[in-house]
Amino acid sequence: MPTPPPFARWLGQTNDVTQVFLAAGQVPDLVNLAGGLPDPSVWPVEALADLSARAVREHPQEALGYPPIEGLPGLRDVIAARFSTDGLRLGRENVLITTGGMQGLELIGKVLLDEGDVIAAQTPAYLGALDAWRPRGPAYRPVRMEEAAPDLPFLMRGAKFSYTVPNFSNPSGRIVDTDRRKALVAAARETSVWLVEDDPYGALYYDGDPLPRMLTLCGGDPYDGPVIYLGTLSKELAPGLRIGWVIAAPEMIGALTTAKQGSDMCTSGLSQQVACMALEDGLCERVLPDILSLYSARRDALCAAMTEHLDELFEWEVPTGGMFVWARARGARLDTDLLMREGLSHGVCISPSSVFDPEGRDRGAVRINFTLNPPDKLAEGVRRLADASRAVLAGVAGGRLTQGRPRLG
Amino acid sequence: MPTPPPFARWLGQTNDVTQVFLAAGQVPDLVNLAGGLPDPSVWPVEALADLSARAVREHPQEALGYPPIEGLPGLRDVIAARFSTDGLRLGRENVLITTGGMQGLELIGKVLLDEGDVIAAQTPAYLGALDAWRPRGPAYRPVRMEEAAPDLPFLMRGAKFSYTVPNFSNPSGRIVDTDRRKALVAAARETSVWLVEDDPYGALYYDGDPLPRMLTLCGGDPYDGPVIYLGTLSKELAPGLRIGWVIAAPEMIGALTTAKQGSDMCTSGLSQQVACMALEDGLCERVLPDILSLYSARRDALCAAMTEHLDELFEWEVPTGGMFVWARARGARLDTDLLMREGLSHGVCISPSSVFDPEGRDRGAVRINFTLNPPDKLAEGVRRLADASRAVLAGVAGGRLTQGRPRLG
Repeated sequence: MPTPPPFARWLGQTNDVTQVFLAAGQVPDLVNLAGGLPDPSVWPVEALADLSARAVREHPQEALGYPPIEGLPGLRDVIAARFSTDGLRLGRENVLITTGGMQGLELIGKVLLDEGDVIAAQTPAYLGALDAWRPRGPAYRPVRMEEAAPDLPFLMRGAKFSYTVPNFSNPSGRIVDTDRRKALVAAARETSVWLVEDDPYGALYYDGDPLPRMLTLCGGDPYDGPVIYLGTLSKELAPGLRIGWVIAAPEMIGALTTAKQGSDMCTSGLSQQVACMALEDGLCERVLPDILSLYSARRDALCAAMTEHLDELFEWEVPTGGMFVWARARGARLDTDLLMREGLSHGVCISPSSVFDPEGRDRGAVRINFTLNPPDKLAEGVRRLADASRAVLAGVAGGRLTQGRPRLG
Repeated sequence: MPTPPPFARWLGQTNDVTQVFLAAGQVPDLVNLAGGLPDPSVWPVEALADLSARAVREHPQEALGYPPIEGLPGLRDVIAARFSTDGLRLGRENVLITTGGMQGLELIGKVLLDEGDVIAAQTPAYLGALDAWRPRGPAYRPVRMEEAAPDLPFLMRGAKFSYTVPNFSNPSGRIVDTDRRKALVAAARETSVWLVEDDPYGALYYDGDPLPRMLTLCGGDPYDGPVIYLGTLSKELAPGLRIGWVIAAPEMIGALTTAKQGSDMCTSGLSQQVACMALEDGLCERVLPDILSLYSARRDALCAAMTEHLDELFEWEVPTGGMFVWARARGARLDTDLLMREGLSHGVCISPSSVFDPEGRDRGAVRINFTLNPPDKLAEGVRRLADASRAVLAGVAGGRLTQGRPRLG
């Protein structure tokens, strides 16, 4: 075609870092510390193979027919029961099944955002959430959870919604404590702003007991509160199923259902029926101890290697769960956009902080994943990262590298 | 919550007719002629149960891990090979796997439409396409395929894309002939406007040989043309898999991939691996003769019943394939929005023409599905529809029913 019509405006504002991460998986001998991938050894392959065959054979209408837009009733009921507590009564009408947790983020943007609307977002923020909302042109008001006492009602008032990953936030690995969770719920009630609780890592507590969900703290009988809770089976069972869910007030579920109708009509019935049978069968609970033991050992291995090789270059806190360590460069000259590029030529891939900043400005930190690689590869990746960091510092000092924004990839 | 923030503007402009259709499935004894559902008897349950188990057991990385955003390489290759011809060389880079055909429509809107952009759309148009694009606020320029010689370049110039369902259009059941297909491709080339060929019913030819796809007529080695072709396994295999695909120029596939990244990241790996093995195995080809024989007999049964009961009230053409008969009321007083509502109280559900009109104005036709119900239920549905039509005419004449736009449902 000579000159096709221009693409929509938002496409000019996006980044291709996720595609770079995925492509990095093809580079031989590269140590990929960039993505958020699980170790395939945790998947219960035999159990899921059996459930898949039974899902089709015993439930052909559910697995092969068009499921309702909202999801299979049986799966919605299982999710509602799983998250109900003494003070929180959930029913099917509070649950929407989504195509992965990502679709929940996209649908929330679709039903709430007109151009220029405000999101009060925990910053740094999940790259995928920024991707999901970018086409709708929102404005971001940063909520910094590491600050002692942010004025939450002030930050949330006038926003369409507030966004938080309270457990082992992506990318910071940080946990939001119970008092702050209560304050977020109170601020949401006071300001009538929806409070999005994105919780993909809620099962991955390696030290100590899980803190209460904001959904649970909100409570309700029946539930009709401001918390919009997002969950997924990607970390607890297998990401390839693409099963996520939204738990929210019925009014919000209704709006999200209308939005989903025009997005993909419904989520794979085969995946939904397998997920339903796996949850009914207690499969997630059975595999969780092995996941926790594998990942916490890898966290320890990564942090030990970082202490040995990166201590002069970065500072970090050891996360108590999740999939990531967030490390901030000790010196402003260590530009992490440059480090990502330099790292690729040293055979290691990390995520630079700029992609988690709604404004794209923070170039002083990196996110390092510890779930995908065994301890020896983690240590090798950290050694390469230290070499690449020194090369960046030497290159910047020597004028070889310039601190312009590189096109990632 | 006292007063949550308002929903995005587009939600106030949507209709709930698809939800009404799905809810109608719960009404006892209702004859549902409204949706576009397959007969469950056509699904190869045993074969798909075996493939599902093998997909997980033999290909755990593909079925359970994160697939690439674009889809599993093996599935993309199978689709590329399936649609390649002597004059059309397709590779993996021309194929994006989508979560059902619906997602292809949504992603095309996402990458091309800014507020107010123009779509040159075959009218009446598929309800789901209107749903998919509504949040982006497009303007529609109707292309009426039943007209003898529409000035296609004039209609397409300045549009972001042109939209056509050439085989057994939803809702009209009409086929676009080969000359018109060639003219559409030529106009797309002349105007540099993308030409969306939405082809969910392309396998469902009951009479005569399939006409060439516009994609095929366009050709290319390698393919880099203006046709964006949408396919799905929903009609040929099973809708619950939610496997669709887009075939397009690599530049367009790249943009759609960026859009899909922020929509659902990737399509169910389990469904994709099952689809890949089913296509490699020739399963679709094996089940197709039974599907064609079942559905063509039902089309004949529906049309016979219509001739017996509806001939005075409606006129229609017998479709040569697909899933629908489109019937236009002989008199302007038979308002089909009213008929849908009246039909529900007579135990029959049809789709009124207003929901297929981008402007919502056409209230003179109905879409009747013939794939879901056996002949005796089709005949009973038609009898009820005739009764309901007479009740509408009597009610309008007697002033009981008013021709305001009812809220469907």
